[in-house]
Amino acid sequence: MSRAPYVSFRVTPTGRRANAADIVAAVEREIAAGGLPTGSRLPPVRVLEQQLGLSKNTAQVAYDELGARGLVETRAREGVFVAAPMVGIAAAAPVTSPPLPIVRPPALMKPENHRGGLAIGTVFIDPELLPSEKLAECARAVLKQPGLATLYDPQGFAPLREQIATRLNARGIDCEPDEVIVTTGSQQALDIVARSLEIRRVALETPVYAYAKLLFETLGLATTGLRLDPFDGIDLAAWDRALATARPGMLYTITSFHNPTGYSYTTRELLGVLELCARHGVAIVEDDWGSDMLSGSEYRPMLRVLGGRNVVYVNSFTKKLLPSLRVGFAVADRAIVPSLLAMKRLATLGNVWLSEAVVAEFLARGYYDGHLAQLQRELDARYAACLTALAELMPPGVRWTTPGGGPTLWLELPRGVAVEAVVAAVARHGVIIDERSAAFVGEPHLTGFRIGYAAHPPETLARGLAIVADAIRALM
Amino acid sequence: MSRAPYVSFRVTPTGRRANAADIVAAVEREIAAGGLPTGSRLPPVRVLEQQLGLSKNTAQVAYDELGARGLVETRAREGVFVAAPMVGIAAAAPVTSPPLPIVRPPALMKPENHRGGLAIGTVFIDPELLPSEKLAECARAVLKQPGLATLYDPQGFAPLREQIATRLNARGIDCEPDEVIVTTGSQQALDIVARSLEIRRVALETPVYAYAKLLFETLGLATTGLRLDPFDGIDLAAWDRALATARPGMLYTITSFHNPTGYSYTTRELLGVLELCARHGVAIVEDDWGSDMLSGSEYRPMLRVLGGRNVVYVNSFTKKLLPSLRVGFAVADRAIVPSLLAMKRLATLGNVWLSEAVVAEFLARGYYDGHLAQLQRELDARYAACLTALAELMPPGVRWTTPGGGPTLWLELPRGVAVEAVVAAVARHGVIIDERSAAFVGEPHLTGFRIGYAAHPPETLARGLAIVADAIRALM
Repeated sequence: MSRAPYVSFRVTPTGRRANAADIVAAVEREIAAGGLPTGSRLPPVRVLEQQLGLSKNTAQVAYDELGARGLVETRAREGVFVAAPMVGIAAAAPVTSPPLPIVRPPALMKPENHRGGLAIGTVFIDPELLPSEKLAECARAVLKQPGLATLYDPQGFAPLREQIATRLNARGIDCEPDEVIVTTGSQQALDIVARSLEIRRVALETPVYAYAKLLFETLGLATTGLRLDPFDGIDLAAWDRALATARPGMLYTITSFHNPTGYSYTTRELLGVLELCARHGVAIVEDDWGSDMLSGSEYRPMLRVLGGRNVVYVNSFTKKLLPSLRVGFAVADRAIVPSLLAMKRLATLGNVWLSEAVVAEFLARGYYDGHLAQLQRELDARYAACLTALAELMPPGVRWTTPGGGPTLWLELPRGVAVEAVVAAVARHGVIIDERSAAFVGEPHLTGFRIGYAAHPPETLARGLAIVADAIRALM
Repeated sequence: MSRAPYVSFRVTPTGRRANAADIVAAVEREIAAGGLPTGSRLPPVRVLEQQLGLSKNTAQVAYDELGARGLVETRAREGVFVAAPMVGIAAAAPVTSPPLPIVRPPALMKPENHRGGLAIGTVFIDPELLPSEKLAECARAVLKQPGLATLYDPQGFAPLREQIATRLNARGIDCEPDEVIVTTGSQQALDIVARSLEIRRVALETPVYAYAKLLFETLGLATTGLRLDPFDGIDLAAWDRALATARPGMLYTITSFHNPTGYSYTTRELLGVLELCARHGVAIVEDDWGSDMLSGSEYRPMLRVLGGRNVVYVNSFTKKLLPSLRVGFAVADRAIVPSLLAMKRLATLGNVWLSEAVVAEFLARGYYDGHLAQLQRELDARYAACLTALAELMPPGVRWTTPGGGPTLWLELPRGVAVEAVVAAVARHGVIIDERSAAFVGEPHLTGFRIGYAAHPPETLARGLAIVADAIRALM
């Protein structure tokens, strides 16, 4: 690759094999038309002969003739060049291409990574609690087969879809492996749902997982916010009025460990939401990232259990197993799988076989339940430690939710203390708070932020919370 | 997971730790409000205590009290249930959720997989020619580090982006690692470009890679077809008129081994296209999946070389290395990377670290150039064998392009022979032809289909071509 790129030109019409005269004529024609600027390198003899299926020496004969006509010159160990002033072909490009006309990134998108600080609101789970070594063991087992699989199933690795369906069946979800679509994290599950919709308005809790809201918005969907107060629960009468007014076609809801509030719907609320949605003709997409993190080794019923097969169910192994695997899934009634799958194929064709195979192996070995039980124990302990630290540290007037475990809770500031002021104050001490304005549809009705106790050992979190408490006290 | 799911309810306002009386009151309230249908299982004592942060025995005391009031009953080894008729909570769901209102899949999307037939038009490369074992070796090397990486870089594994930038620099492309965005195959690169656009109309060659066209269309973009005749090349005057009339904001073009025709642009045509696009203010996205497959170990200049940094350049390791890896990339000027990256993050957050690390290892070991050289030799041989077979087998009036190597060529039928008739006739003999109507913008001006000589050993392909030739002859 050390030599200059060569220029290409068309030699011959179809119908017969090209000869040396055709090549000479073609080069003459191209030079006259400006297609071969001076200094351009012509294709090597061997390449030209191979590409045109020429008999041996044909190209050399042609180049010799072109050289004799003064049109090209041969430079030893460099190649054959269009004769005259030494100008490369790049210089012959007439103009610069116009820039791509693009939209700006959504204003409220955070930079990709927090670096160099204690991110006190992150939903990620401490890497120390994730089974990275066991996953590597599963990957090594997958690689014991000779070579890697060549192809992928656009719907997801079949044994993985079977494992997922079996696990969901045990949790009361009636589904088959061909109703499971494996995705690149649950984010892609939301993406393929959003781009399949024929309606133009969706309802979301407010606040809500900000990247779901931004995803819907960038795909041109209008959003209706349904107010969620993690201290008071769901005001079903208010939701009823909002649905009646806005007439969305779909509700996106996070029913366990709601992001960002940590709220989990009560069963009565789930039943109420179902009744509302049925009455207003609103389809439901349930994002169940959180219920696996509930301790107790049993599970509360999800909307998908209560509301039946029309509820599209989304979940992921990403947070709980290992973010870098990027394996999530959607479960949908067979009737709509072809549309969702078509959108997945247009988005990525299919996803990484190796990652899907590693997760399938992890499930097949029965590692997942053991891992979840251990993870839940650890999250419970961190949750309890977080509650203790908050009770000790926070000044009066600060409130927080009690999600009952899981990764995060919501910390609500006393009246008159601004989130931005706290964010700025703690940043000076190396504590990073995710400012949550991107999570609200319209004006925020809460004044607070997420605390992530899954991400940090209790003593680290307590150190961060002390800084937060000091900042709040100073601003009161 | 063998016991019934339990119902959840909210016990207490914030401010103080709940006691047994709070629990009793909450359950009574919920039962009265219909939130705890008879037969519902209450949370296990241990779970309730843990979730609420109760002191030991609080929940048991409350359940005992509720039992004494006749509101709940304890069943040995099953749990605590709301007393009275035995109805599960699922039966209490008021109604079935409405179905998701979705668009149908694009009519011209093919089913995901061809099974049980000789797919004579596939662009895939014979798995025998792909370095599956060497990739597995690289994966094992990656896994020698303890555990798997926890996180991922949303833009793509940094060492992989560095390798890609270095390779592109050697091919005359001026770019830095932070201008490379790794994607799930080149399909995701097209997806993030398409969803970043602020213009509503794009130009495409017709015919064109069908999944690019369908992707643009499903995202609401209008398409303008620029006619490509693989036997006569690009009619720049016609393109000029089409661009002037339709005023698209972007051109998507496949400049080497154009899919589906196998056509490669001459340098003069590339310069002409650049001039047109500059004059009409049309940005360029160049899909360069093919030039790596050109034999000769050197490369022709691409539009990205000639037209500069505003040309968005898309390529992939997928076809040439291993489809199941799903690693492609886009290269874009630094100014627009934030927008493209935001769209990637909204689509998938980030992609599989392991797959990116395996490709980085493969490149770092210098395996890729050796693999490409070997692949090119084999493709050249298959190309030559395909030309020989076509010349021997096809009746007069059948034409085919001579792409000069690579994976596919275009076979054009004699006037009066319909593609659909040939497709149907050969299907009866187990030969599958991709019907190409989805590849055209508007009415097809070609009557033919793709032949994929990279996918099959020469003798297998020749057997298929003989069946195709017989079918054509019978229809003439």
